[in-house]
Amino acid sequence: MDHLPLKDDILEAHLRIRPWINHTPVFTSAYLNALSGSELFFKCENLQKVGAFKSRGAVNAVFSLQEEALAGVCTHSSGNHAQALARAAALRGIPAYIVMPDNAPRVKVDAVKSYGGRITFCEPTLQARESTLLEVSKKTGAIEIHPYNDYRVITGQATAAMELLEQVPGLQIIMPPVGGGGLLSGTALSNRYFNPGGRTLAAEPEGADDAFRSLQAGHIIPSIGPRTIADGLLTSLGSRTFPIIRDHVERILTVSEANILKSMRLIWERMKLVIEPSAALPLGAVLQYPEIFQGVRTGLILSGGNVDLDRFSWSKP
Amino acid sequence: MDHLPLKDDILEAHLRIRPWINHTPVFTSAYLNALSGSELFFKCENLQKVGAFKSRGAVNAVFSLQEEALAGVCTHSSGNHAQALARAAALRGIPAYIVMPDNAPRVKVDAVKSYGGRITFCEPTLQARESTLLEVSKKTGAIEIHPYNDYRVITGQATAAMELLEQVPGLQIIMPPVGGGGLLSGTALSNRYFNPGGRTLAAEPEGADDAFRSLQAGHIIPSIGPRTIADGLLTSLGSRTFPIIRDHVERILTVSEANILKSMRLIWERMKLVIEPSAALPLGAVLQYPEIFQGVRTGLILSGGNVDLDRFSWSKP
Repeated sequence: MDHLPLKDDILEAHLRIRPWINHTPVFTSAYLNALSGSELFFKCENLQKVGAFKSRGAVNAVFSLQEEALAGVCTHSSGNHAQALARAAALRGIPAYIVMPDNAPRVKVDAVKSYGGRITFCEPTLQARESTLLEVSKKTGAIEIHPYNDYRVITGQATAAMELLEQVPGLQIIMPPVGGGGLLSGTALSNRYFNPGGRTLAAEPEGADDAFRSLQAGHIIPSIGPRTIADGLLTSLGSRTFPIIRDHVERILTVSEANILKSMRLIWERMKLVIEPSAALPLGAVLQYPEIFQGVRTGLILSGGNVDLDRFSWSKP
Repeated sequence: MDHLPLKDDILEAHLRIRPWINHTPVFTSAYLNALSGSELFFKCENLQKVGAFKSRGAVNAVFSLQEEALAGVCTHSSGNHAQALARAAALRGIPAYIVMPDNAPRVKVDAVKSYGGRITFCEPTLQARESTLLEVSKKTGAIEIHPYNDYRVITGQATAAMELLEQVPGLQIIMPPVGGGGLLSGTALSNRYFNPGGRTLAAEPEGADDAFRSLQAGHIIPSIGPRTIADGLLTSLGSRTFPIIRDHVERILTVSEANILKSMRLIWERMKLVIEPSAALPLGAVLQYPEIFQGVRTGLILSGGNVDLDRFSWSKP
C-alpha cells in the first residue's frame, strides 16, 4: 500500500484486524467533565492488546502482506511497537525480528520474547539501530515494518478514531498525543472521512515539541534531545505522517511536564485506569488550554497503559 | 426491612439503585487465564461510583427510607462506606452525618466533604466512634446506616453478583473478598437465587482471618489486631452477615500478604486497572489455591479502586 489511506482502506483495515484486537471501550468521568468544563470521552487503548494502540497498526501491516511475508517482518524499536509487531507476526505464523538497543529495559525485552520475537541487540544509537536492522533484513529477507512511517500502520491506527466515532456520535474535537505521528495522522484521516466538520488537535510534551515546531516551520524538524516523562513521544515526524498532519490537523498543543503528571494521576485516581505517561497528554492539554474545550464534546485517545511499575515503590503493611 | 433478603428484594433493589450507580463492566485477561488455568471474569466495582461496591448498599439503604428519612442518615466509617453514604444522601437530598476518627487520612476526609457529608471527629477507638455516633443520632434524629450489618445494605451489595450473573452465564464459582461480610453475604444470596448450583467462596487476608475462624468455630470471632495491607477488610462479621455466610458460603480461603501484593500488581500491570489492595484478594486466592480453580469458570469481584497514590512515589524525568 503506497498511497495516502482512503476511507475504504480504513474500513477494510478494520475488518482485517477485528479478529485480533480488542474493541476497546469508551469511558467518561463526571469529575473530569466538571473539572474541565468539557464533555470528555476517553477511548481506552490502554486496554488494547499488548496495552497500546500499536496493536492496530502492526496487525494491519502484518495481515496486509501477501506471499512476500513468508520470511517474516522486522523493525527496530524498544517500545510498544516491538511487542505489537512480535504478537502480530506470531498470529500470522511468521517470524518477527526485533532490533533493540542493548540498554533496553529488561521488562521490554521480556515482553517481546514472550510473544516469540527474535531479538538482535545493538548499540543504543539511531545509526547502529538502522544499520543493524538493514543487516537483519538482508540476512533473513524479512520486510521492515516501520513504527509509524508506513501507510499500512497509519491505516491501522486510524481504526481507533473510527471506532470512537461509532461509539460517540457528534464529537467536535478528537485529540491523540503525537510522537512520530502514526496515531495522529490516522486519527486525522478518520475524523475527516467519518466526521465531516470534526476538528483534529494533538497534544505534545513541551520538552519534545518537534511536531509543534515542524508545523510552524512547514517542514520536518527532527526531535533532538527531547526531555519528558512521556517516553512514547520522543520520535520525530516522518515523511508519510508529516504531510497528513500538516493538511488535516488544526493545531498541536504543547503540555508541561507538571500537567502531564497531574493528568496521569487524575486518570489513575479518578478513572481507575492505569495509563502510561504518553497517554496523559490529551487530558493535560485540556487542563492547560481550557478555553478551547469549554462545552465542547471532545474525544481523547488514551494511547497505552504500559508503565513500568518498578518505578513506583510498593508499600508493605 | 428486617428479614433475610429474598430474591424479589434483590430484584427490587436493582431497579431502585439503577439510576444512581454504574452498571460496571466485566473484564477478562487471557494472560491471567493462562497463568491460573482458570477462566476468570472480573466484575469491575473499582469502576463503580465513589470507586467501590459500597455505593450499591448505601444507595439502596438511603432510597429505601420513607418519611423517617427526612432528618438524614448517619454512620461511623473512615472508609468507602462513608463516601458512599454521603453521596447517596446528597442524591436523596437529605443530610449525612459521618463520624470519623480524628486520625483519618486527609484524602478520606476531603472525599466525604466533597459529597457534602457533615463530619464529626472523635478519638480513634471503636468505643468513641460508637458513643459519638449515638450522640449525633440523638441530636439530629438521623437514622444509622451500618456499613454491612444491615439487610438493606446487604441487599444492595447483592446486586453486584446479580449483574455479574446476567453478564456471564454459567459461572461455577463466585468469589468476593470478605471483611464485615456485607458484600459476601449479598453475593452468596444472589448466587443461590440466580445461579442454582453455583458455589460461593470468599478470600480473606491471612493477617485478618476472623471470618475464616468464625466459620470454623460456628460463632462470630471478633477481628482483633488485624495486620494486612488490605485496609478494607479489617472488620468483624456481624449478626446479620454471619448466619448468611455460615449457611451459603462453601469456604473461606486465606491469602498471604505476598499473594495480595502480587495479585494487585498483576491486575494493575496486565489489566490496566487501578484496584485497592482489598480487591486483589480473590485473585490472590486463585493463585494460592490453584487446584480449586483449574478449568473452573470463576467470577471475581474487584471490590474497589480507592488506593492512596501518595503511598507511591511518582517519578519525574
